[in-house]
Amino acid sequence: MPIYRIAIGAPGEASHPDAIKAAMAEFFSMLIFVFAGEGSGMAFNKITDSGSTTPSGLIAAALAHAFALFVAVSVGANISGGHVNPAVTFGAFLGGNITLLRSILYWIAQLLGSVVACLLLKFATGGLETSAFSLSSGVSVWNALVFEIVMTFGLVYTVYATAVDPKKGNVGIVAPIAIGFIVGANILVGGAFDGASMNPAVSFGPAVVSWTWTHHWVYWLGPFIGAAVAAIVYDNIFIGESAHEQLPVTEF
Amino acid sequence: MPIYRIAIGAPGEASHPDAIKAAMAEFFSMLIFVFAGEGSGMAFNKITDSGSTTPSGLIAAALAHAFALFVAVSVGANISGGHVNPAVTFGAFLGGNITLLRSILYWIAQLLGSVVACLLLKFATGGLETSAFSLSSGVSVWNALVFEIVMTFGLVYTVYATAVDPKKGNVGIVAPIAIGFIVGANILVGGAFDGASMNPAVSFGPAVVSWTWTHHWVYWLGPFIGAAVAAIVYDNIFIGESAHEQLPVTEF
Amino acid sequence: MPIYRIAIGAPGEASHPDAIKAAMAEFFSMLIFVFAGEGSGMAFNKITDSGSTTPSGLIAAALAHAFALFVAVSVGANISGGHVNPAVTFGAFLGGNITLLRSILYWIAQLLGSVVACLLLKFATGGLETSAFSLSSGVSVWNALVFEIVMTFGLVYTVYATAVDPKKGNVGIVAPIAIGFIVGANILVGGAFDGASMNPAVSFGPAVVSWTWTHHWVYWLGPFIGAAVAAIVYDNIFIGESAHEQLPVTEF
Amino acid sequence: MPIYRIAIGAPGEASHPDAIKAAMAEFFSMLIFVFAGEGSGMAFNKITDSGSTTPSGLIAAALAHAFALFVAVSVGANISGGHVNPAVTFGAFLGGNITLLRSILYWIAQLLGSVVACLLLKFATGGLETSAFSLSSGVSVWNALVFEIVMTFGLVYTVYATAVDPKKGNVGIVAPIAIGFIVGANILVGGAFDGASMNPAVSFGPAVVSWTWTHHWVYWLGPFIGAAVAAIVYDNIFIGESAHEQLPVTEF
Repeated sequence: MPIYRIAIGAPGEASHPDAIKAAMAEFFSMLIFVFAGEGSGMAFNKITDSGSTTPSGLIAAALAHAFALFVAVSVGANISGGHVNPAVTFGAFLGGNITLLRSILYWIAQLLGSVVACLLLKFATGGLETSAFSLSSGVSVWNALVFEIVMTFGLVYTVYATAVDPKKGNVGIVAPIAIGFIVGANILVGGAFDGASMNPAVSFGPAVVSWTWTHHWVYWLGPFIGAAVAAIVYDNIFIGESAHEQLPVTEF
Repeated sequence: MPIYRIAIGAPGEASHPDAIKAAMAEFFSMLIFVFAGEGSGMAFNKITDSGSTTPSGLIAAALAHAFALFVAVSVGANISGGHVNPAVTFGAFLGGNITLLRSILYWIAQLLGSVVACLLLKFATGGLETSAFSLSSGVSVWNALVFEIVMTFGLVYTVYATAVDPKKGNVGIVAPIAIGFIVGANILVGGAFDGASMNPAVSFGPAVVSWTWTHHWVYWLGPFIGAAVAAIVYDNIFIGESAHEQLPVTEF
Repeated sequence: MPIYRIAIGAPGEASHPDAIKAAMAEFFSMLIFVFAGEGSGMAFNKITDSGSTTPSGLIAAALAHAFALFVAVSVGANISGGHVNPAVTFGAFLGGNITLLRSILYWIAQLLGSVVACLLLKFATGGLETSAFSLSSGVSVWNALVFEIVMTFGLVYTVYATAVDPKKGNVGIVAPIAIGFIVGANILVGGAFDGASMNPAVSFGPAVVSWTWTHHWVYWLGPFIGAAVAAIVYDNIFIGESAHEQLPVTEF
Repeated sequence: MPIYRIAIGAPGEASHPDAIKAAMAEFFSMLIFVFAGEGSGMAFNKITDSGSTTPSGLIAAALAHAFALFVAVSVGANISGGHVNPAVTFGAFLGGNITLLRSILYWIAQLLGSVVACLLLKFATGGLETSAFSLSSGVSVWNALVFEIVMTFGLVYTVYATAVDPKKGNVGIVAPIAIGFIVGANILVGGAFDGASMNPAVSFGPAVVSWTWTHHWVYWLGPFIGAAVAAIVYDNIFIGESAHEQLPVTEF
């Protein structure tokens, strides 16, 4: 029962230099990721006069997120494990791969990184709107919730298989590419329906800076449920009773 | 004569925990792959009001399949070999790399994964059609059959060269990328003519959920012939008398 | 003076089983590459009613060639060195990395692979034209020649740096990706001017099947000059007096 | 205080054969990179009659730069470290990873490579304009400066994390991909606002050949500030007091 492995963290862990450094790595990785991801949507709005989504627009969003997330995971991998996603941190926590205290530090750093990226975008674009994630016409909150659950399941399942599983072997080398590409692939699907966040921090920054909170809870609940299901499924079926390594989650 | 290596499977093999785990890995990999692949087509229909295929639409489909198949192969590689395709399993079977019993388990898991992905897509999109594969206007069944044979030949030849061949060396590290990219490249060709399946499970899920069976046999016969030719050609010419490893097919 | 290393081949080399197997690997790699590359252009013509090139059309061509060449190089790497290009074979020959006899075998196999791919495309598409490479309006043969020289220089320089150079180290792992991507990048440039071949076999198959020979010499002379310059420059400046390995050119 | 590690270079270093070879490698890498990058913009202008930027145009530019920079870094990695960017060289200099004399050699080679690439493009395209980088309508120089600072920060942070940091481990294998992809991702953002250079040499070649110097300073000051901030931040926070290796910056 891997659930029992959940740990709270040793006293003083959160102020340990390594934990602080790891949180700073999460901050910078998230800043780089959101600047490219959210920014690509603002660039689309700039050159199409905020036109409606086209296949080319989806491709641009998918590539920007896939490329930038691959980079963000790679640059953080050896310092923080390269989570760059509160849902991934939550999934790692459920599998006993990170303590609660350290998770909270990561979450704060991730949310801050996203907000700072959006503030920089707002200034650099001369004040364009940092559009919050929203549901396309005809998409209910339940539809969107299922989208976020299934897509984040795929993402966190990928994190477990390529970065957490002790059996990963050479697959570990492609872990950051796999993590970037599953997000890119899913954006080509969910991007047309609910924006395809799979990442509460990615939704949080634009929501803060544009102060738009409609349906914002969907982009937290969906990814957390999807991450939890993936962590529990992968951990129980494919890792089972074998030894678990502690942090970092992503070791290439 | 490698054909003689075909094996039926030891008694009880199919219920061996490892075989069950491998089949479950195939199920989840296929779910992730089809959700992105079929879903990207539904996203295109959503944002173009089911418009006809454009170059951007082909690119979106190619990237969604290439990225997601790369991921699906990677995450399954160390558990099931990462086939994610009944035709690949068939090719592995012909080369003596997997037993018949285990192949049947894989096939069931792959088909189920595709159906479940399409059901999830149907619900998440609020009931949009999971379009079945079909022939474009002016394309005969013989044309489509040749397309599926040649494209699946390329795919299974790639699987053999990068994942099965004991000489593969460092090329093994790029195996899942090569497998994803050959499918992506071929979609940029065959996508305009017959949808470019190369994978009976990929065609099966949408056919079941939309209950559309026109020309469905083409998407089974073509891939199986292509896989068989690739397995026999590669195995006899390039592997020859050298030792064969048993499962898993894909070891990175 | 590395030029002195050019070798003619031992008596009987051309009929040596390894040489035959290597040539067959070149044949299958070229078939896979040209089917996707030339086929993607025919798919564009199919869905746009042979419309003029658009940015999306260039992207589709670039991705199809980049993905498929990466695969074609990977699958051939351990058998033939994965040249998949008569100009690369010529560059390898000039650097003393392959004998003349073996080069001739490779050239024959490469040209045959391209022709067979085009015949398969012709049949699978129900008789659509396998468009030969041609100069866009306003592009002179000298313009096109410079394009082919510079682009093939970049390609063969990449082959030397990532696959031939004994100092290559871990860069060797990314060799097939680098080779595929430099062709993809150059198609986004030259594709708008002369089709961006960089590969006489890629131009030869469509020319034979559509029997169109206008300016065909440009697609031989340009790549051969570019390959020669790259081989001589890289070999003399960056490899110098250090030991040369014989075949295969590409060892990952 | 890593700043103290800045070195001027031993007497005669600049004429040392290795330094000359490294500079020549920077020259050829830059030539290959700018030919594809700037050339893709000229191809867009050719096929759209110099139309305004579209999402497809941004995607083409992003892919051409990402693919070609990945290649340019890879082919130079073992000789010069694969900087291919005066701002990266500056960042490496600030972190004490390259001497001042050698930096100056690199800068000269990089600028020359860019100018020669643009001259070749000018000739090959029959005299089309090598468009200089410029600000889109509604974008102030301060906006553009922030864009270049933030985007180059991301690029040089990536260089440090994947290629300079002694802890990099297996992440080093993906360094050239990460470097190419962060530039590709940022072009999907900044390309719509200021062309997204992140590289003074990339802006210099087109400016020289088209003799257009409006706002040119932005494309030097921004990348140098961004590189400096990334070098100082990464070096002080994540490398700290640990040993520094001398050149080459990029060792895979």
